[in-house]
Amino acid sequence: MFSVNEAIDSLLDGGQRLVESEEVDLISALGRTLAEDIIASMDVPPADNSAMDGYAFRQGDWQDAQSELPISQRITAGSVPQALEPGTVVRIFTGAQVPAGADTVVMQEHCEGSQKAVRILRLPAMGANIRPRGQDITTGQKILPAGHRMRGQDMGLLASQGIDKIPVYQRLKVAILSTGDELIEPGRKLRGGQIYNSNRFTMHGQLAAWGFEVVDLGIARDDPEAIRELFETAAATADVILSSGGVSVGEEDHVKDVVESLGSIDLWKIAIKPGKPFAFGQVKGTPFLGLPGNPVSVFVTMLIIGRPYLFCCQGTTDTTIHAVLHTACFEKRGSAREDYLRVRLGEQGLEPFSSQSSGVLLSTSWGDGLVRQRVHEDIKQGDRVEFLPWPVLN
Amino acid sequence: MFSVNEAIDSLLDGGQRLVESEEVDLISALGRTLAEDIIASMDVPPADNSAMDGYAFRQGDWQDAQSELPISQRITAGSVPQALEPGTVVRIFTGAQVPAGADTVVMQEHCEGSQKAVRILRLPAMGANIRPRGQDITTGQKILPAGHRMRGQDMGLLASQGIDKIPVYQRLKVAILSTGDELIEPGRKLRGGQIYNSNRFTMHGQLAAWGFEVVDLGIARDDPEAIRELFETAAATADVILSSGGVSVGEEDHVKDVVESLGSIDLWKIAIKPGKPFAFGQVKGTPFLGLPGNPVSVFVTMLIIGRPYLFCCQGTTDTTIHAVLHTACFEKRGSAREDYLRVRLGEQGLEPFSSQSSGVLLSTSWGDGLVRQRVHEDIKQGDRVEFLPWPVLN
Repeated sequence: MFSVNEAIDSLLDGGQRLVESEEVDLISALGRTLAEDIIASMDVPPADNSAMDGYAFRQGDWQDAQSELPISQRITAGSVPQALEPGTVVRIFTGAQVPAGADTVVMQEHCEGSQKAVRILRLPAMGANIRPRGQDITTGQKILPAGHRMRGQDMGLLASQGIDKIPVYQRLKVAILSTGDELIEPGRKLRGGQIYNSNRFTMHGQLAAWGFEVVDLGIARDDPEAIRELFETAAATADVILSSGGVSVGEEDHVKDVVESLGSIDLWKIAIKPGKPFAFGQVKGTPFLGLPGNPVSVFVTMLIIGRPYLFCCQGTTDTTIHAVLHTACFEKRGSAREDYLRVRLGEQGLEPFSSQSSGVLLSTSWGDGLVRQRVHEDIKQGDRVEFLPWPVLN
Repeated sequence: MFSVNEAIDSLLDGGQRLVESEEVDLISALGRTLAEDIIASMDVPPADNSAMDGYAFRQGDWQDAQSELPISQRITAGSVPQALEPGTVVRIFTGAQVPAGADTVVMQEHCEGSQKAVRILRLPAMGANIRPRGQDITTGQKILPAGHRMRGQDMGLLASQGIDKIPVYQRLKVAILSTGDELIEPGRKLRGGQIYNSNRFTMHGQLAAWGFEVVDLGIARDDPEAIRELFETAAATADVILSSGGVSVGEEDHVKDVVESLGSIDLWKIAIKPGKPFAFGQVKGTPFLGLPGNPVSVFVTMLIIGRPYLFCCQGTTDTTIHAVLHTACFEKRGSAREDYLRVRLGEQGLEPFSSQSSGVLLSTSWGDGLVRQRVHEDIKQGDRVEFLPWPVLN
């Protein structure tokens, strides 16, 4: 039996990026993974500029609060200033470039005067109200590393460098298929013995939230030829193949034999709950992850085991999940398996869903996240436990 | 001066949903907001089914571990069973429907026998290994409320009810525009006095991450006619208008006059840092939020003030942000404004970026989230402080 960490490490050790790079417009780069380090090609801001509406001047020209200084120039944001004429001030606005020769900006509220001349009533400190060139970024600095997954602020940061196209890795193509003659697609009429295929939708949503391209292959009947055909299609069109259900060794589980005939498969017992049975292998060289069949098992193994592996195949590096500590409002004995409990944030702390069965998908919609209960860790009322809110798993 | 909470409350009090509902395919519903409560129309699972590969039988038929019971039926997942013949067992597989008359499933590992008959070596408890009908969901139960934002697990949950289309609110259309003659779009050559427009990209990315439709109107020159034209276009095409920059009362800030002439505008001072100047109004009836011009101020006011208001306009209800408590590795005096510090998760706790200036957008890409420092709250080394990791702000 593998521990959860052994399973993840084993996948990542054998894993590698499976996609090439391409160039995309920065404006549509949300969620994409950078294919190269981004090095600053310019200082930001590119020149000293004013943080206030006021007057730019040289401290040496100031005598006292009574002396008028003539206004020699008016500089608005976006215009190019002349050098400061000695003994004068320059009318300046927020964001405008500070002229050469000026060392300070005084805010207009601390001045009095006319259109032609002003008195500076209070002398600010040397350099006041000037945002110096290169304050944000200096040329040559690495501002984002290869492997970084783009967020709104990163788009803004690269735009501030004048970048409008960036190198990213192609979206990882992930094929999903479900097996089981009892499965039927929603929207169709349910017959006796059937259940609706929910795993396809859960997995599709998770993969889309992670920014992957989903190759949705639907349901394979419990028949070796049908399963073989679907796996061959998956291997030909996707970078990674995921299946749910059908990876145990029962008489009616054909996935193992089919994958073995097309590539290789190892059945793993992972000490995780929900979600024990797990298969890893390859189909004609395309990596294959065989997830359990129960709805919550699929959801949890996707998050905890599938997610880091898929990001590795995408070339994304910064995928660490930061658990936070929060108060448990329940008691639960530890077991030989790492347990992922569906919990909700209540007034006093974390409250578990009434049923932690791997069949009860409602627990995941009801809850705000998972508590990770380590192997043999007993949880008592009031203990601070590891909490993984859903958003950090995206 | 408004406190942050007063500002948000004031926006939400006057806010309302601005979009109608439409029907979409469940498979593409990630991130969409439900327009109606979803009520279960069926039990899940729809019938008792087996949790194991094994044999279904009636406890009353079991004598002892030596007695053979004939196998009268073979039930695979997806097939419809006959009622149990008294005095016999039924070969059954995981997920298959338990036949009427059977009350227990024994796992195959606890049996011995042939294709025709088996001995049950260990009698399991009454009802063992059967997932009862309605265990997950019972008919008539509300499973997701109107206003809920769809995630992968919710897609799976609704699929398990046979639902393939759902009523959602149309995507909120949010117009963004930036003002300032110093701004130029990335990809073009920077001239003296100019800076690249980063706010457009930051806002675009944030809005896309929140699932809104972005109406990207680019840069308005600092000219009343140009600004007026852009605002009229925005009001005609979008549900909400956002602008960055140009909402203070300087000689070169025309947004206030233009919006006043087309609708109404209030200038707010919000006790938030970064991000003090803020405007709220309407342009020909379309709500207008005027954000500050500095890159980090835009980013933070979008997250803290814009986000709850925009979700309100979208009809999304469950947008509470759950801060978590984490250890500060720094000291900072409180001030008269609520301060949002850019911090990174280090080994010992939260470490602040070297510059907390509102011009330094790099702090947001470098960091893992924000610390919320309340008004006049002094933070000391080792204090547990409110931490908002980026993912919870999505």
